[in-house]
Amino acid sequence: MSAVRYELIKQCPVTGARAGRLHTPHGVFDTPMFMPVGTQATVKTVSPEELKAMGAGIILSNTYHLFLRPGHELVQKAGGLHKFMNWQGGILTDSGGFQVFSLGDLRKIKEEGVTFRSHIDGSKQFLSPEKATAVQEALGADIIMAFDECVPYPADFAYAKASTERTTRWAVRCQSARTRTKDQALFGIVQGGMYKELRKWSADSLVELDFPGYAIGGLSVGEPKPLMYEILGETTPHLPANKPRYLMGVGTPDCLVEGIALGVDMFDCVFPTRVARNGTVMTKHGRMVVRNAAYAEDFLPIDEQCGCYTCRNYSRAYLRHLFKAEEIFGLRLATIHNLHFLLDFMRQARQAILEDRFPAFRQEFLSNYHLN
Amino acid sequence: MSAVRYELIKQCPVTGARAGRLHTPHGVFDTPMFMPVGTQATVKTVSPEELKAMGAGIILSNTYHLFLRPGHELVQKAGGLHKFMNWQGGILTDSGGFQVFSLGDLRKIKEEGVTFRSHIDGSKQFLSPEKATAVQEALGADIIMAFDECVPYPADFAYAKASTERTTRWAVRCQSARTRTKDQALFGIVQGGMYKELRKWSADSLVELDFPGYAIGGLSVGEPKPLMYEILGETTPHLPANKPRYLMGVGTPDCLVEGIALGVDMFDCVFPTRVARNGTVMTKHGRMVVRNAAYAEDFLPIDEQCGCYTCRNYSRAYLRHLFKAEEIFGLRLATIHNLHFLLDFMRQARQAILEDRFPAFRQEFLSNYHLN
Repeated sequence: MSAVRYELIKQCPVTGARAGRLHTPHGVFDTPMFMPVGTQATVKTVSPEELKAMGAGIILSNTYHLFLRPGHELVQKAGGLHKFMNWQGGILTDSGGFQVFSLGDLRKIKEEGVTFRSHIDGSKQFLSPEKATAVQEALGADIIMAFDECVPYPADFAYAKASTERTTRWAVRCQSARTRTKDQALFGIVQGGMYKELRKWSADSLVELDFPGYAIGGLSVGEPKPLMYEILGETTPHLPANKPRYLMGVGTPDCLVEGIALGVDMFDCVFPTRVARNGTVMTKHGRMVVRNAAYAEDFLPIDEQCGCYTCRNYSRAYLRHLFKAEEIFGLRLATIHNLHFLLDFMRQARQAILEDRFPAFRQEFLSNYHLN
Repeated sequence: MSAVRYELIKQCPVTGARAGRLHTPHGVFDTPMFMPVGTQATVKTVSPEELKAMGAGIILSNTYHLFLRPGHELVQKAGGLHKFMNWQGGILTDSGGFQVFSLGDLRKIKEEGVTFRSHIDGSKQFLSPEKATAVQEALGADIIMAFDECVPYPADFAYAKASTERTTRWAVRCQSARTRTKDQALFGIVQGGMYKELRKWSADSLVELDFPGYAIGGLSVGEPKPLMYEILGETTPHLPANKPRYLMGVGTPDCLVEGIALGVDMFDCVFPTRVARNGTVMTKHGRMVVRNAAYAEDFLPIDEQCGCYTCRNYSRAYLRHLFKAEEIFGLRLATIHNLHFLLDFMRQARQAILEDRFPAFRQEFLSNYHLN
């Protein structure tokens, strides 16, 4: 019995969209879900209570960052990540693979694992399937991820094939390395670059290993969106219906709605929190750069229909003032709105699936949303 | 009838300490009180709800800053400062005088007022008793301050005398300039530098003008603490017992307890919020630099006896991690603790006054507190 279990509640009869529930050691959470990113054991600027109030279920934290600082042993001594950061909801940690491979010249990949230099102090470090698993066990998230290589875009077929095959070999090693099976679930990660046959092979080989959930990695890495949707659409059908599917690093509303349509249950992205800190807020019509002069005397909330703390209490003019004055509270208010917006968007999508009207919901959303 | 009224409840039979209540258009607040500083229409990093939860009654906001950005007309259009920043408790605005005089070469003082250059864009600006009053009426605080000159330290007698006399002339002009008397109270500011006879003259001349409250300015401006206490002790006896006394810009715990002993009811200071953002937290034993390596694996809260949100939920190790990782949530948690600490300290002092044990409370506090 896995520590995490997916319950499929309803399937859209037209698209691949699914409404479900994820049972974890820290609660039961509705899917499709968006997971706010708390890279360094904090979702930047906001409190756990604020996350809870906006309906966040599972948050994501980054193994690479916590491994380097404050170190997984320290987090373990603190009683694990949940206790350390005061978050009693679900936590998913990535494997560190994505960050390590992003280091470019600072890392060296071998079959055994990856040697790299810390971005903090330049020290030499090493991560492997075994090490990444041990680190994640020390951190203590509900869901941990297999150590994989995210195939870069573009990549030629030979590179993508070799890399994808290694990712499956590494997934086997992650499974073998596990010791903490009672309260943690390990998800495998489908790779394969932009090659359909590699995606199929990757999915098939991982499904054979019987993971309790499957991530789809290596998308939203620079490829055009239509290609991303095409590859995603060639991947999810190879994954079992009774397991959750997690599309890694995807978080703009248009990609979320298309991801849901293609059968994805879980998403994460720094997008909503990062743009918030630049003074950009999200609306159903697209982005609003609330720090712009146009909002200086605009005393409406970001969105009059929005029920978030920010929209209930503050005007665009106040937000604009805070950004101009470089006040931290502005970053916090914008972050709260953006996370609430995406979480609420997922709730709406779920409701639409449950009520057999997801195709119309998707259509209406996309026709109103400006990709600016 | 003034918009703000002080109610003296209990006087310490040994020291000058007083327990009272301040009645304002936005609530009744216990004194002695510490007012958190929200310079730019936000108490840096924290929300109004957090301020309320820690028991903050009145906060201070800075006229100089709001005058320059976003501008008092804009705040007025927004419905006033309370509505603009979503704070339904009391607000006190200073007059801008202190900031303007701090500009050094960038300002020029005449009897009419002060010409200065904005620290934001270098633009030429002007503040006078009439202008500062109009700006504060537009902002809409419960308590507004007379436009004064803070006598620098050191200052020779002739300068201090001329400046102090002008401050009283300006106080008269502020009174005359007022139009919004129903829901705002204007406090006069006692100056006089470090000269007892000037302090007495200043207090007497302002008391004659019958303000609903009196601030004591020009202290904690670089003079040794014993001298500050001496001058303060020569000032408060000249102020009427039925009016509140506000010692401007004072906020370290040792100065607060001595200020209370000398008959002060209200204080404000950026100290607790500023040091918080540098990773320093306040305790009854003195400051703790929680960002130091010594706390890396210290899983205790800042203070096990403290009831603040930070101490109830987070360890020193977590705070230290947030500061090392430059996470904004760390600034927020430290700010919450420091403000809670000072507000709670004032509650304890008040309780001691009410129970006729303030001298022992003061003694015990000072013997435990390290001035580091």
